Amino acid sequence: MSHAHPDAPVVAVVGGGQLARMMAEPAAALGIPLRLLAEAPGVSAAQVIPDHVVGDYTDLATLEDLVVGCRVVTFDHEHVPTDHLHALAASGTAVRPGPEALVHAQDKVVMREALSGIDAPLPRFRVVESVGDVAEFGFPCVLKTSRGGYDGKGVWFVETADECAVAFEAAAASGVRLLAEELVPFRRELSALVARSPSGQAAAYPIVESIQREGICREVIAPAPGLDPDLAARAEGLALRIARELDVTGVLAVELFETDDGVLVNELAMRPHNTGHWTQDGAVTSQFENHLRAVLDLPLGSPVARAPWTVMVNILGGTGRLYDGYPHALARDPRLRVHLYGKEPRPGRKVGHVNAYGDDLEDCLERARHAAAWFAGELGNESE
Amino acid sequence: MSHAHPDAPVVAVVGGGQLARMMAEPAAALGIPLRLLAEAPGVSAAQVIPDHVVGDYTDLATLEDLVVGCRVVTFDHEHVPTDHLHALAASGTAVRPGPEALVHAQDKVVMREALSGIDAPLPRFRVVESVGDVAEFGFPCVLKTSRGGYDGKGVWFVETADECAVAFEAAAASGVRLLAEELVPFRRELSALVARSPSGQAAAYPIVESIQREGICREVIAPAPGLDPDLAARAEGLALRIARELDVTGVLAVELFETDDGVLVNELAMRPHNTGHWTQDGAVTSQFENHLRAVLDLPLGSPVARAPWTVMVNILGGTGRLYDGYPHALARDPRLRVHLYGKEPRPGRKVGHVNAYGDDLEDCLERARHAAAWFAGELGNESE
Repeated sequence: MSHAHPDAPVVAVVGGGQLARMMAEPAAALGIPLRLLAEAPGVSAAQVIPDHVVGDYTDLATLEDLVVGCRVVTFDHEHVPTDHLHALAASGTAVRPGPEALVHAQDKVVMREALSGIDAPLPRFRVVESVGDVAEFGFPCVLKTSRGGYDGKGVWFVETADECAVAFEAAAASGVRLLAEELVPFRRELSALVARSPSGQAAAYPIVESIQREGICREVIAPAPGLDPDLAARAEGLALRIARELDVTGVLAVELFETDDGVLVNELAMRPHNTGHWTQDGAVTSQFENHLRAVLDLPLGSPVARAPWTVMVNILGGTGRLYDGYPHALARDPRLRVHLYGKEPRPGRKVGHVNAYGDDLEDCLERARHAAAWFAGELGNESE
Repeated sequence: MSHAHPDAPVVAVVGGGQLARMMAEPAAALGIPLRLLAEAPGVSAAQVIPDHVVGDYTDLATLEDLVVGCRVVTFDHEHVPTDHLHALAASGTAVRPGPEALVHAQDKVVMREALSGIDAPLPRFRVVESVGDVAEFGFPCVLKTSRGGYDGKGVWFVETADECAVAFEAAAASGVRLLAEELVPFRRELSALVARSPSGQAAAYPIVESIQREGICREVIAPAPGLDPDLAARAEGLALRIARELDVTGVLAVELFETDDGVLVNELAMRPHNTGHWTQDGAVTSQFENHLRAVLDLPLGSPVARAPWTVMVNILGGTGRLYDGYPHALARDPRLRVHLYGKEPRPGRKVGHVNAYGDDLEDCLERARHAAAWFAGELGNESE
């Protein structure tokens, strides 16, 4: 692969999902070459990044080959073994976010202990080694595996001792710890998104509301409607403080519960995040561009919103014939912004999202929900 | 190359320049696979489009191979031989824009004769076969080769018979016709950009002002400052009428002279155009996305501006170390939008552009001009 800007730094990206795919758009605009490690031929990001290899991200030699000649390595997901990241860093590769930071997004116990240590507001939690520990912690509660969970996987709501067995079995089977967490009586879920560079520059996006169903993000409203401005400022400040204290580089998403007393941290992600997809069309600089700028230690772009409201709705599942959705969806709404991932639709799988922005929130919600449902084949338009 | 959406149509693009490169961004977002015919390995678009072949666009067999399995073929430039386009169309390929339309962007004489036929306003012109013809037409005037000119090449300003020789020699050497055109006392240059689909849907972008130096577009201001609204509407209507009468599919740029009496058509381009680069950050739907939608006969996106003003300034030439420009340019202006083409800087070569949008035109002009000059190494920052 020839790159015509001899001084342009190559960014290695581990993981060929839609997050890497969506990094490719600003990378092309900025003239920054990406080198991708894809899990398999033809995965989402490999469709749009010419300089890619197919390999196993749990194999250190594969990672070592990937980063040769690259300025920095970053990630589409948090599943690269921590030891491998330390090995890459030890041999002089810029790993961003670094392994000491990333472990907080990989391990829910490590994260909670670290955030407790900096007095960040958290739901009450405890590492549990037996059903007795859970009973002592108190039912009902939520059990979570320390590693490996996402989109509702690795999470159990339990009300009795009997219901705990499946969680302990899952944790034992994958050799990870289990934690119990209080059920938080939250009003809604919020997300605070920041980008931070190695030299410490940080940009905070507006706080958004995230609507989840069955543990999967379905909708995001930017900014969070009716959010108290003081609380919004404190939530942004909290995310910036977490990014600084954990020495995060790149994008950090802090998923929050809004309660009667303020916010509590639910989860962290150290990469572009589903709750930041609205920034592609709704902010001056998208989270994908700011992630690239951050890991390259370039000055960050403005995170300010371009419209009063932006609504993101995920396209889940679908009919297998996504392209069929275009004629109606685009004709109905000439301002609709569509992002498809090149992924084959399966029930519950995120295969794309739509953004609708404008001056009227109800209008944006209606437009985005209609389009996402249409693409998913939920409006009487499913293929046979 | 595996594509995970079995129903997604592949779009073949002939030509690996920056226009094809910039089509890749909305193509990725829309989940539309591109297949590129590149002039050489590593050219601008080949850096960001995995499914590409290197070949000669003047070779019919190469074109025939390219379009196998593609829904439609479109273009980064207007240089594909007209006969080849007819051959592709005759064998069932959707060629958009089609050869009957594209010839008007390939041949300045054919264009002027066709536009005269539909009473579109044009500078006075005449095909000239001798210096005597030019003298009869009247000095001073402009001589233009019918084909092959761009960015000021193939154009001569002549005041005397002696000065005509070089133009006739150039025309004879490349076997093309020469035309004489009156010198238009224009106030400024404007550009009307429209997208049109095969089924006849058409979208008109706001009329912009284009500032040229030495025949090369340097700056674009959207919308054209102080333009009479009636004249703007008439100019949009003229571009829409030309697109319809010539049966253009895809983006059509109509370069205009604004005179005391209205507008005159200067040139046509049937592809995304330099005067439309502002739409990437300044309009709801970019010209690159609407070009893809149009050639696929998908409903077009809104061409409405997202900000009161957007200024585009080209980055020409430069120091060979474009990436060095980032730390200052991005830190100075967090709202700056940068588009680099992955092209090696050479004197006068377009290697990128910047867009600045906002509420204040002077501010946008200052920001965009400063950044473009900085990237070009014109502000005391050239590399040795």
